[in-house]
Amino acid sequence: MATQIPTPTPDDKFSFGLWTVGWQGVDPFGGATRPQMDTVHALEKLAELGAYGVNFHDDDVIPFGSDDATRDKIIARFRQGLDDTGLVVTTATTNLFSHPVFKAGAFTNNDRDVRRFALRKVMRNIDLAASLGAKVYVAWGGREGAEYGASQDTRVALDRMKEAFDVLGDYVTDHGYDLRFAIEPKPNEPRGDILLPTIGHALAFIERLERPELVGVNPEIGHEEMAGMNAAAGYAQAIWAGKLFHIDLNGQNGPKYDQDLRFGAGNVRGAFWVVDALLEGGYDGPVHFDYKPARTDDEDGVWVSAAANMRNYLILREKVRAFRADPEVQAALDAAKVPELSVPTVGDGEGWRGLLDAEPVDPDALAARGAAFEHLDQLALEHLYGVR
Amino acid sequence: MATQIPTPTPDDKFSFGLWTVGWQGVDPFGGATRPQMDTVHALEKLAELGAYGVNFHDDDVIPFGSDDATRDKIIARFRQGLDDTGLVVTTATTNLFSHPVFKAGAFTNNDRDVRRFALRKVMRNIDLAASLGAKVYVAWGGREGAEYGASQDTRVALDRMKEAFDVLGDYVTDHGYDLRFAIEPKPNEPRGDILLPTIGHALAFIERLERPELVGVNPEIGHEEMAGMNAAAGYAQAIWAGKLFHIDLNGQNGPKYDQDLRFGAGNVRGAFWVVDALLEGGYDGPVHFDYKPARTDDEDGVWVSAAANMRNYLILREKVRAFRADPEVQAALDAAKVPELSVPTVGDGEGWRGLLDAEPVDPDALAARGAAFEHLDQLALEHLYGVR
Amino acid sequence: MATQIPTPTPDDKFSFGLWTVGWQGVDPFGGATRPQMDTVHALEKLAELGAYGVNFHDDDVIPFGSDDATRDKIIARFRQGLDDTGLVVTTATTNLFSHPVFKAGAFTNNDRDVRRFALRKVMRNIDLAASLGAKVYVAWGGREGAEYGASQDTRVALDRMKEAFDVLGDYVTDHGYDLRFAIEPKPNEPRGDILLPTIGHALAFIERLERPELVGVNPEIGHEEMAGMNAAAGYAQAIWAGKLFHIDLNGQNGPKYDQDLRFGAGNVRGAFWVVDALLEGGYDGPVHFDYKPARTDDEDGVWVSAAANMRNYLILREKVRAFRADPEVQAALDAAKVPELSVPTVGDGEGWRGLLDAEPVDPDALAARGAAFEHLDQLALEHLYGVR
Amino acid sequence: MATQIPTPTPDDKFSFGLWTVGWQGVDPFGGATRPQMDTVHALEKLAELGAYGVNFHDDDVIPFGSDDATRDKIIARFRQGLDDTGLVVTTATTNLFSHPVFKAGAFTNNDRDVRRFALRKVMRNIDLAASLGAKVYVAWGGREGAEYGASQDTRVALDRMKEAFDVLGDYVTDHGYDLRFAIEPKPNEPRGDILLPTIGHALAFIERLERPELVGVNPEIGHEEMAGMNAAAGYAQAIWAGKLFHIDLNGQNGPKYDQDLRFGAGNVRGAFWVVDALLEGGYDGPVHFDYKPARTDDEDGVWVSAAANMRNYLILREKVRAFRADPEVQAALDAAKVPELSVPTVGDGEGWRGLLDAEPVDPDALAARGAAFEHLDQLALEHLYGVR
Repeated sequence: MATQIPTPTPDDKFSFGLWTVGWQGVDPFGGATRPQMDTVHALEKLAELGAYGVNFHDDDVIPFGSDDATRDKIIARFRQGLDDTGLVVTTATTNLFSHPVFKAGAFTNNDRDVRRFALRKVMRNIDLAASLGAKVYVAWGGREGAEYGASQDTRVALDRMKEAFDVLGDYVTDHGYDLRFAIEPKPNEPRGDILLPTIGHALAFIERLERPELVGVNPEIGHEEMAGMNAAAGYAQAIWAGKLFHIDLNGQNGPKYDQDLRFGAGNVRGAFWVVDALLEGGYDGPVHFDYKPARTDDEDGVWVSAAANMRNYLILREKVRAFRADPEVQAALDAAKVPELSVPTVGDGEGWRGLLDAEPVDPDALAARGAAFEHLDQLALEHLYGVR
Repeated sequence: MATQIPTPTPDDKFSFGLWTVGWQGVDPFGGATRPQMDTVHALEKLAELGAYGVNFHDDDVIPFGSDDATRDKIIARFRQGLDDTGLVVTTATTNLFSHPVFKAGAFTNNDRDVRRFALRKVMRNIDLAASLGAKVYVAWGGREGAEYGASQDTRVALDRMKEAFDVLGDYVTDHGYDLRFAIEPKPNEPRGDILLPTIGHALAFIERLERPELVGVNPEIGHEEMAGMNAAAGYAQAIWAGKLFHIDLNGQNGPKYDQDLRFGAGNVRGAFWVVDALLEGGYDGPVHFDYKPARTDDEDGVWVSAAANMRNYLILREKVRAFRADPEVQAALDAAKVPELSVPTVGDGEGWRGLLDAEPVDPDALAARGAAFEHLDQLALEHLYGVR
Repeated sequence: MATQIPTPTPDDKFSFGLWTVGWQGVDPFGGATRPQMDTVHALEKLAELGAYGVNFHDDDVIPFGSDDATRDKIIARFRQGLDDTGLVVTTATTNLFSHPVFKAGAFTNNDRDVRRFALRKVMRNIDLAASLGAKVYVAWGGREGAEYGASQDTRVALDRMKEAFDVLGDYVTDHGYDLRFAIEPKPNEPRGDILLPTIGHALAFIERLERPELVGVNPEIGHEEMAGMNAAAGYAQAIWAGKLFHIDLNGQNGPKYDQDLRFGAGNVRGAFWVVDALLEGGYDGPVHFDYKPARTDDEDGVWVSAAANMRNYLILREKVRAFRADPEVQAALDAAKVPELSVPTVGDGEGWRGLLDAEPVDPDALAARGAAFEHLDQLALEHLYGVR
Repeated sequence: MATQIPTPTPDDKFSFGLWTVGWQGVDPFGGATRPQMDTVHALEKLAELGAYGVNFHDDDVIPFGSDDATRDKIIARFRQGLDDTGLVVTTATTNLFSHPVFKAGAFTNNDRDVRRFALRKVMRNIDLAASLGAKVYVAWGGREGAEYGASQDTRVALDRMKEAFDVLGDYVTDHGYDLRFAIEPKPNEPRGDILLPTIGHALAFIERLERPELVGVNPEIGHEEMAGMNAAAGYAQAIWAGKLFHIDLNGQNGPKYDQDLRFGAGNVRGAFWVVDALLEGGYDGPVHFDYKPARTDDEDGVWVSAAANMRNYLILREKVRAFRADPEVQAALDAAKVPELSVPTVGDGEGWRGLLDAEPVDPDALAARGAAFEHLDQLALEHLYGVR
């Protein structure tokens, strides 16, 4: 392949959570390794690297418990930073997991007072999100779940989760906000088992809401891979369902703690197929990175890794395009009958009756045909390796 | 607890796949360790042990490719066996995975001829299933999936999967069969990544069908645990969605190959909570075991393990009932505010406006309340251990 | 089984890390949910509950960076607490993971200055450990490892790890301390891949040390199960190698983040077999719990969970003893030929020549014998369930 | 990078198990999809593709239970095939897992008759292996293990495993064979938990043998990754211990069933680092592939995949060499202080006393240094992607 990789520009729609480059490195076994990062400084650096947008939890920008005056001052400065850098706010979200009040969940906390507190926190932040132009409101229910079977009734928890999204749906509708919700599934960590653990569970849940059209998913590669799922297949099912409202790209090495590696630096082959799923599926929203710069590194490493996320996406985008355009690949797809899957199994007007009446086929003869997958996959791999 | 465990009776609605007790022990690294088991012998032994019903793949009873005369003879003998033993046929299913024709899938095989062959095979077997009184048609798409990203377009595969269920929905409706479908999810094995890998993915898929009311799920404990999922939470979400049409109970030890241990002999704590989810959720269908007797054992071991599945269910049912009836547990549930989760977060008629207007609460004061989960869970564990 | 479970006494040799009951609940997504616990208060409560001993990291007792006067004062108060409660210090260990200086490792940090700092920190704490009577010095190298292939040369890292233990071996030998080291393996978290990830890797490493006799292992159930390992089999191999110097009991639910559930509250069946491995293998050291009280709970939950660890061990110990003493179990063990494994395969003086000369056997006849494992395992399970 | 990838030649020492290209596709859910392959045909094709050597289980070449005349005839034809193609036999091994006699293990079967049968089978095959020039005898104990805690005493099983290797060590020594053993670890499948589940466990076990110098390991990438292990780190520890006697390269996607994908087609990043570990560690034995051509493919796919294994190794070898030779990489390694890890922590003659006497360092100042790993890893990734 040509090794000329484009430089990121705002047209690529790359966006970052402020909590990503701002992560200080606190983990279960150690404290911060980097000082707190000024929000406006982060905006400036991200813009300089070619990013298009940013996202934030309320508490990323405005410290929990700030009074109104402080809040207003912080928001004004943040707006100014956006104006100065040209970055847009693509999504917003509410931190419903860091403060100890949320230790046993937010929307599905057994304690009704906590649930009410959580909903109010979200509504307040939705106002801010809308005023900043966010189009998607991400909902990661990281503390909704349980370690122990008796401590939460899953069916009742789903009732409360539904109630929360129904109320919030009313809220944005009544305010006329141009804002949709994107649920971010995760199987576990920080809870033993989190509610709506995969893309599938979230998609199914959405169908039971009062306003399902307002709610989609925001799948994160790493979260899916923590459950051993094929992330690309999950993204594809979300697109198939018309529900891929936003994406979280990063890297992970299989079922273990949430690694949040920079995009491209975990399951490399999986990353290639995620990009393919996005391009083939026509996803045109922000290309968002939700990762953590290695805790071992200082601020230089933060910006190296931020830039690398975008660069790796562009590298893979070039590869995927080259793969799809390669005549040898197209021949291999034909040999593997991949296009034939688009032909309906039952003919137009044939119905089950026609199918039953059709001439029988010899299964042994059909079985003798090789599927020709090894050659096709090797071509893909060689595009990934950059040797074609 | 009382150690008096009831003996299985047909009222307990225990059922077995004929392929379970009949499994000969072929695995990827070795051949059969047990001779083929006569189907009627299996019926007799299962009835003797207290089972209520049986299930089968077409090929379990009628060897693939049998001519019509042979087929009729086998079916007649099988019906006689059912009559003689009093066992009922609770579900049926089609083997769409053993013959090499299905090596690259059935309903979603890239080769249209194979897809057509598969649908015809299913329709033929549905007739038999209906005539034998089965109420649920289980659909495990074990070969639908891929090892390689390019070999199948997931979105197109979902189109074909939908087409298959739509056609089959027409088929049973047009025939007036009293038969519903239950999709059995599985994350992988024998394919690298299987389509509809978890309960969630299957539930979401069903919502896009033409006749969603005809289709539910048949979750298997082991399949969910292979993806690191909490099986009880998955069963609960299926019940919440009104879609738990059938169940497959067995045992597994986390993400590894499909172990199909007898029920109770894998994740013991998980088994307790699955039984709790079924009882609390009002599941009243057959209690079906889909397991494999250890390949190391001879036929004696087969019947020991068959009986043990039922016994373990009864043991756990007793424990779950004792747990739920224990006043100390009820006090612990109250202390953990579990019942409070049933109270809607927003008051009747309150709406988001009322919630916003309500008196604020102090998050730090709320955070100071302990959730009291350790005590509650220890009580559950002591019921499981049988020391309460 | 009799449901009479004994009450913990110091004769049971239960011990706790001070960092366990003192854990404040900081995790990657949220801050402390419990206030700091006074060390002497912890001693008093543990003694009251029936514990025998305690363990600590240097920084658990003496805040990192304390000056000598403060240090001495803290130590004096701690000694007094030990005297007042009768608790003994069974092991000690050095915190080589919390301070940011250790972000890229301690004994194997690429930065030699950090390695030297780490060794000095350990030596200082060894003096304290010895003076407090600890017999085992636990070494968990939680930050030794890498996320990225290039950032550490594994072979060179093993050289440095060996150097560290060789130097520390000299140190305790030269001081005449009655202290042995126990390496605690862990596969990952907080590093992507940790050096010496399992019991096996640690045992193998020890054989290359200058003083292998001074070094053994301290396996933690949860760490082994994070790698999908059978913890009981790992403990057994450590005993077989003469290297089980200490144990860390807790609970985990398979490959995911490090859960540190209380003992008994994860893989229940695994816990039963770990206790069996310890009793059958003659382990007679402290029975140590390395767990985290649920972050959702307040201090009441801390003591509930602390007591539950001990109670669950005693419950399982009763069950294991009952299992081993049950005549039906002994018959089942005989039927499964378990005792025959103790008979050497080659007769005394027979050698390979005699074996080759012996009468051939018929493999098909041998293969026809069932192994009778299902019955045996069901008996074990029923002991676990408490229904025998 | 230059996209000119060399063509495989015998100098590259590529070897294949006959059971790999000859795999017919039997899996737990379906029968053969490919006809049996003639052994000599396999030799011819492998030679044509550029392979150097082959390996086999006794039963791969000589059907189980063949009489002596048949055996001799088969061997003569096989030798002729080797002579005609110029392929060498690099290793041999004994199938101790397919016949039902081995259903509960071979060297550690509870049934002493089976153990004796197994040892005899191995000895007979060692004679053949030696006569064919094999230098390494691979020992995969796939059936040594258990599903159930009571069915095998792990410590006694290790005694029997040790006895087997001790007897076989006598056997090859007494015969003067130039043959060493290589144990192949695997965590599970086909047994629930296999004895010696990882490289570490096998290395540790070897140290307790009578002739440890005769025994090393044969790690398989997929087997290590099934346990979530970093394969490259495992290979490195084996080299560090002087025990990497042979290698099995293939592909896997994390903890699930044993996928045996062609090398390069699983964890791509892991494959890069395995090749790096082998080249940096000076491994110079055969580069052996133990994989399964996709069951979906016909014989064309078999040879495509066989060739692809070698090609992917050569691609990665080029990339690793380019990575190590890149001046920017060397600068990044320096910045990350990777070479400094080779400097002993304690100075020559310094000892622990000198270390204690040395000038203290300021941990906060040390902590402020970034480890510079993100930049280094991104360089590696870009070499892998072929964009540098």
